[in-house]
Amino acid sequence: MQNKLMRRVPPIVTLTTDFGGGDYYVGAMKGVILGIAPEAQLVDISHQIPPQDVLAAAFVLRHAAREFPPGTVHLAVVDPGVGTRRRPLALQSSGHLWMGPDNGLFSFVLDRADSRIHEIARPDLGRPNPSSTFHGRDLFAPLAAHLCRGLDLADVGPPVADPVRLDESAPCKSADRIAGHIVHIDRFGNLVSNIEAADIAPWGSALRIRLGDHVLAELCRTYEDVEPDAPLALIGSAGLLEIAINCGNAARQLGVQRRATLVVEKL
Amino acid sequence: MQNKLMRRVPPIVTLTTDFGGGDYYVGAMKGVILGIAPEAQLVDISHQIPPQDVLAAAFVLRHAAREFPPGTVHLAVVDPGVGTRRRPLALQSSGHLWMGPDNGLFSFVLDRADSRIHEIARPDLGRPNPSSTFHGRDLFAPLAAHLCRGLDLADVGPPVADPVRLDESAPCKSADRIAGHIVHIDRFGNLVSNIEAADIAPWGSALRIRLGDHVLAELCRTYEDVEPDAPLALIGSAGLLEIAINCGNAARQLGVQRRATLVVEKL
Amino acid sequence: MQNKLMRRVPPIVTLTTDFGGGDYYVGAMKGVILGIAPEAQLVDISHQIPPQDVLAAAFVLRHAAREFPPGTVHLAVVDPGVGTRRRPLALQSSGHLWMGPDNGLFSFVLDRADSRIHEIARPDLGRPNPSSTFHGRDLFAPLAAHLCRGLDLADVGPPVADPVRLDESAPCKSADRIAGHIVHIDRFGNLVSNIEAADIAPWGSALRIRLGDHVLAELCRTYEDVEPDAPLALIGSAGLLEIAINCGNAARQLGVQRRATLVVEKL
Repeated sequence: MQNKLMRRVPPIVTLTTDFGGGDYYVGAMKGVILGIAPEAQLVDISHQIPPQDVLAAAFVLRHAAREFPPGTVHLAVVDPGVGTRRRPLALQSSGHLWMGPDNGLFSFVLDRADSRIHEIARPDLGRPNPSSTFHGRDLFAPLAAHLCRGLDLADVGPPVADPVRLDESAPCKSADRIAGHIVHIDRFGNLVSNIEAADIAPWGSALRIRLGDHVLAELCRTYEDVEPDAPLALIGSAGLLEIAINCGNAARQLGVQRRATLVVEKL
Repeated sequence: MQNKLMRRVPPIVTLTTDFGGGDYYVGAMKGVILGIAPEAQLVDISHQIPPQDVLAAAFVLRHAAREFPPGTVHLAVVDPGVGTRRRPLALQSSGHLWMGPDNGLFSFVLDRADSRIHEIARPDLGRPNPSSTFHGRDLFAPLAAHLCRGLDLADVGPPVADPVRLDESAPCKSADRIAGHIVHIDRFGNLVSNIEAADIAPWGSALRIRLGDHVLAELCRTYEDVEPDAPLALIGSAGLLEIAINCGNAARQLGVQRRATLVVEKL
Repeated sequence: MQNKLMRRVPPIVTLTTDFGGGDYYVGAMKGVILGIAPEAQLVDISHQIPPQDVLAAAFVLRHAAREFPPGTVHLAVVDPGVGTRRRPLALQSSGHLWMGPDNGLFSFVLDRADSRIHEIARPDLGRPNPSSTFHGRDLFAPLAAHLCRGLDLADVGPPVADPVRLDESAPCKSADRIAGHIVHIDRFGNLVSNIEAADIAPWGSALRIRLGDHVLAELCRTYEDVEPDAPLALIGSAGLLEIAINCGNAARQLGVQRRATLVVEKL
């Protein structure tokens, strides 16, 4: 049944922010959660998301959070629009609960059969006299704690049908062509796309991959399948199509940035 | 009753240090605490305090720690004087326990009605043969763990009446004038003072704010209350008077550094 | 009895990696562990090990991990050889469990009487279809969780007799001479060696210490035992022989790097 959510004891709350490590913001959020739900198990995913980089946060969140057990509450605060009219969201997807501003942070975790999205409209559950600049502490952290303690998602606020999605949220698919984007560049310069292994698996080796002027004719298994300094395509550890350079830095050597278009064609 | 402290089960221990993330210091402290109090719930507030910056640590500690539930043990180790005669302290304030060197770290959390301050004078509870350079591991961490396990604050050592306070610990108040300091500059360049909202609330809008040559005639609600690039004063998310520049960096554009004097006058 | 290992409830799992704080790797490992062993208490030792710096990780691991209570599981992933034939190891030493690639990471924790080392050869306990680049998530994290839950070390795979050891794993000792290495340079530039206090204690003050062209004739107790800017030798907080400069930076001023040879002679 779609609305069923397994509750964990003790509940796990993960935190993903762009607050960095040197200020009081992260500590304050943790304090608020434990003040309401002292039994919660807090787990840092990352506080080093580049400031206000929603795409980076959405990617990290997707690939870290999906490993957690069902019932985990994921709190994500990368919030360039704090204090404006952007909606605060709480949602259920893949058996997990998610919370954060409606700016595309959850682009990679929506669209599951069990997705339910609600706007947070319960000022009574947040901090009295909330600030206009720190909703992480004043709104999202208390709500996360209340969800830990059993608050039903439906009691958070009205359903939302049109959450913000990043343009890079999913590739554009047709019968013999998939057009995706580079959504992440790892520290080795590998170019990670939003095209999943399953998207192209049916085509086997009958495919062609284009990234700007670069054309790749096959999917490799390891970096060493090509000569040093040659580009290659492979499925990386995130289960996504990646473009890399054996012994090199693909982002730099190919001059490719995030959001570049990557096209796979069936031959 | 002033001496009453709520004990939490499981006890929470927060950590605030300038040890950074790449060395063994933080891990060693955590290991020591869990060795004595395995039931403790460890929560990192920050390990990215600038080296030996007591004011920065005092600020972060105050604004993160106050959000935690009563009974939390806060361990703070920013300790330029380690190995000298500076006293190691354990104290109770606001229903929390605090521990660290007597160098001003607790400047912003003292002065509560329930404050009790003791010098740690129990070598028997610390590590045998303690080092002269790492009291965080050898003295403070074991004591924090013993407090978690029920050690009474009065059994830690003799009371202390004159803890070190930073010059910036509190503004200087008279009937129609408050002189405070800039105690924190956030990453947007906003200048956060030690003047609390409640200090100036009674004056309403009949006030004038001076920071060096800059004079501000009112308290704004949001950055957008002034033109872009214009300075403004507002109450920030820490509940403190801040000077900011709409769409700008106040620290850089006004040429103001931490510890600068900020004066508010009643008109 | 050598094989006896105390099991903790709840089990503690520490994490030491070179993954940094901005990517999904650390979060994914935490999620995998909690998915299998939800009762595990996760503790970050460091994720800021310099990329692929096995010696740095081995040092941090040794000096943080040894403070944890017996039965702790230490997961270390600094893995330049991931995807090659390097063996994945699980081992018991000093009453703790350790897990990671066989590349020298455990150089400083082997050689205890209770050491037992096994190659991990249980693909059935890892993630199905493991990636070739992220064994931290796909192999080590699940195994750590299964050890938490009571899996016996002997059931992990065959015993290993020849784990990789760093050249700097232990000094070379004779009756009147110990030749060690600088294994760590702390952020003050102090040069920390792999020579333990106990190695030289029997010689009292009848010793001479040589580091390149520099000769030191005694062991000091504190930095202030010598003039400012003079070099000195002392036992540091890690219990190891260190070379420092009073009020100075020994690494820079003496021009010494990690892995330099340090010799102590008995007079």
